[in-house]
Amino acid sequence: MPASPEIAALLVHNNRRLLDSARPLGIPVVHCVTTYRDVEEIRANPFWRTRAEDPSATRKNVLRHNLAGSPGCTIMPGLQHPTDFVVETKKRYDCFQGTDLDTTLRTHGIDTVLITGINTNSCVLATVCAANVRDYAVIVVEDCVNTMDSPAHHDAALMCVRTAFGFVASSAEALELARSWTAANA
Amino acid sequence: MPASPEIAALLVHNNRRLLDSARPLGIPVVHCVTTYRDVEEIRANPFWRTRAEDPSATRKNVLRHNLAGSPGCTIMPGLQHPTDFVVETKKRYDCFQGTDLDTTLRTHGIDTVLITGINTNSCVLATVCAANVRDYAVIVVEDCVNTMDSPAHHDAALMCVRTAFGFVASSAEALELARSWTAANA
Amino acid sequence: MPASPEIAALLVHNNRRLLDSARPLGIPVVHCVTTYRDVEEIRANPFWRTRAEDPSATRKNVLRHNLAGSPGCTIMPGLQHPTDFVVETKKRYDCFQGTDLDTTLRTHGIDTVLITGINTNSCVLATVCAANVRDYAVIVVEDCVNTMDSPAHHDAALMCVRTAFGFVASSAEALELARSWTAANA
Amino acid sequence: MPASPEIAALLVHNNRRLLDSARPLGIPVVHCVTTYRDVEEIRANPFWRTRAEDPSATRKNVLRHNLAGSPGCTIMPGLQHPTDFVVETKKRYDCFQGTDLDTTLRTHGIDTVLITGINTNSCVLATVCAANVRDYAVIVVEDCVNTMDSPAHHDAALMCVRTAFGFVASSAEALELARSWTAANA
Repeated sequence: MPASPEIAALLVHNNRRLLDSARPLGIPVVHCVTTYRDVEEIRANPFWRTRAEDPSATRKNVLRHNLAGSPGCTIMPGLQHPTDFVVETKKRYDCFQGTDLDTTLRTHGIDTVLITGINTNSCVLATVCAANVRDYAVIVVEDCVNTMDSPAHHDAALMCVRTAFGFVASSAEALELARSWTAANA
Repeated sequence: MPASPEIAALLVHNNRRLLDSARPLGIPVVHCVTTYRDVEEIRANPFWRTRAEDPSATRKNVLRHNLAGSPGCTIMPGLQHPTDFVVETKKRYDCFQGTDLDTTLRTHGIDTVLITGINTNSCVLATVCAANVRDYAVIVVEDCVNTMDSPAHHDAALMCVRTAFGFVASSAEALELARSWTAANA
Repeated sequence: MPASPEIAALLVHNNRRLLDSARPLGIPVVHCVTTYRDVEEIRANPFWRTRAEDPSATRKNVLRHNLAGSPGCTIMPGLQHPTDFVVETKKRYDCFQGTDLDTTLRTHGIDTVLITGINTNSCVLATVCAANVRDYAVIVVEDCVNTMDSPAHHDAALMCVRTAFGFVASSAEALELARSWTAANA
Repeated sequence: MPASPEIAALLVHNNRRLLDSARPLGIPVVHCVTTYRDVEEIRANPFWRTRAEDPSATRKNVLRHNLAGSPGCTIMPGLQHPTDFVVETKKRYDCFQGTDLDTTLRTHGIDTVLITGINTNSCVLATVCAANVRDYAVIVVEDCVNTMDSPAHHDAALMCVRTAFGFVASSAEALELARSWTAANA
């Protein structure tokens, strides 16, 4: 269920720039990758079954999406570094559901998450909610999230995030904040 | 953190009408009530701490909100029936977090949830996400949810729900659907 | 599913002594109480259904056990103090399952648990396992746990705890340890 | 933290025989593999830190145990078939903690688990407890579990399982039961 090539290229560019700046500051990078063993793992979600039956839905291909071994399960070129963490068992919108993300964050003493990725109004939004209710501090990096749905969906999700769940900041602002933490802990 | 008296009155009226129609159809009613033992249980959430420090935030009173014994922990008059279930340990936006809601639904064979309440763009939204990723079928009852934030926040949250997480329906549509299930199972 | 009156009396006595000594040391006390809304919440557990059908099982009355309003849902006299925490939605052996215990501990900064109660080889054991895998430090207070099954079951469970899950200590040892922490933090 | 070569060989033999008989009956096989990204993921468990400091503990090597890429992260030869499921993010005794095991079982309609592996009194026991409290029916296959601790530990754990958590059966009994289910559903 890809975004347009333009959105994808911009998003990869912005994320690469953010991650390349974050690693030297000692910020751990965690890649969450959706992978399904088989179509049953997708079909068990009732809303996705309704999407698969609706030819006008942006998520109409959900039952063919990210099956193990397909290209969708690959991290986009340029984004992964050998020291990064990979969480590979993501299966629903929320990156915490059925994964070791919470364990990974907790065992490495991480209490604040900068969230990037696609789609602002589905995986990003659900992960923001899940991180907030687990008492993580959440910052969504605005130029590093996007959506295949529409700019209005992107804006709607960010409006919800800002009001109740976490901060929304540009890459520059997020990195400036991270530098101030690093300085404070030096 | 109350909504305006007009919104509150309308929401109670609409919910009462929905619940009074749902019980005779055999639809179980679950009330989720937020209750904190003490302020520490609220303060542990980092975003809420930032809200408490911002005098312009709609959630600026969060640290005084729904402490055990306060009026906010009461179910609104007219909504509760003796046969309803009450889930009393809600402490975050998401009704599943730290509660027995999942156990309650699962042990009673419930796989579909009609979600109502306040605020559309915080508790309702987070609960919709959490229900979706646990593979419940979700229907948000549009005239039975509202928000203290703004009509734009209400619309933004419902746009996100419709696109990726569940159906949005009026009370009349939701009850019509429920009647068709009851007839099919009779 | 009560233990013998002798075991119950001894256990209440020992727990009362422990709790009365712990509170002045600033150790929070959390009571976990099993309460079922209805028999469906019990019957959903497949092993318990097999116990209910076996007239020789110690847990043969499980389907009548701790329904809301029954005496089994009461905290034993003398054990509860107004400042204690109560976790009321316990429904399975493991006190973390479907409850706000994890939230309660985490939001109050608690990372070590002294576990007491009945039965050593079911609720205590399952809660020890669950606490260990969530990275809490676990100490089972030996003279404050017991079982309706048999002394051999009590010993078997404690052998398993000691080897892989946590420490087993007497009330006196546990309190001495707590005093040393209090002194270290004074 | 290996068992003796004799125990390991017997356990692999018995498990291989069980799995080879189970697959033709349509029973899905799930391998749960412990893998740590780094020592921090182990050290976050406080009881394991105490084991690492005790030269007489069977688990004294826990901080060097199953780091990613080490031989301990490999499934024993002869046990894995291409159609089996692998759950790779196990990090604590309980196979459900921080893994997609629950999702895997649920999305494939599995409500009963035959549990095998090592050690009877740690990973097997904790997983039995966790499966029971999630309302799975549990059968521990007695000749397919074992321990590096001692025969007394094996017996103690099975005594606890039998009394409160699930059935204990031989491979032959478990397969006979599975055949009766297959026949009933044919």
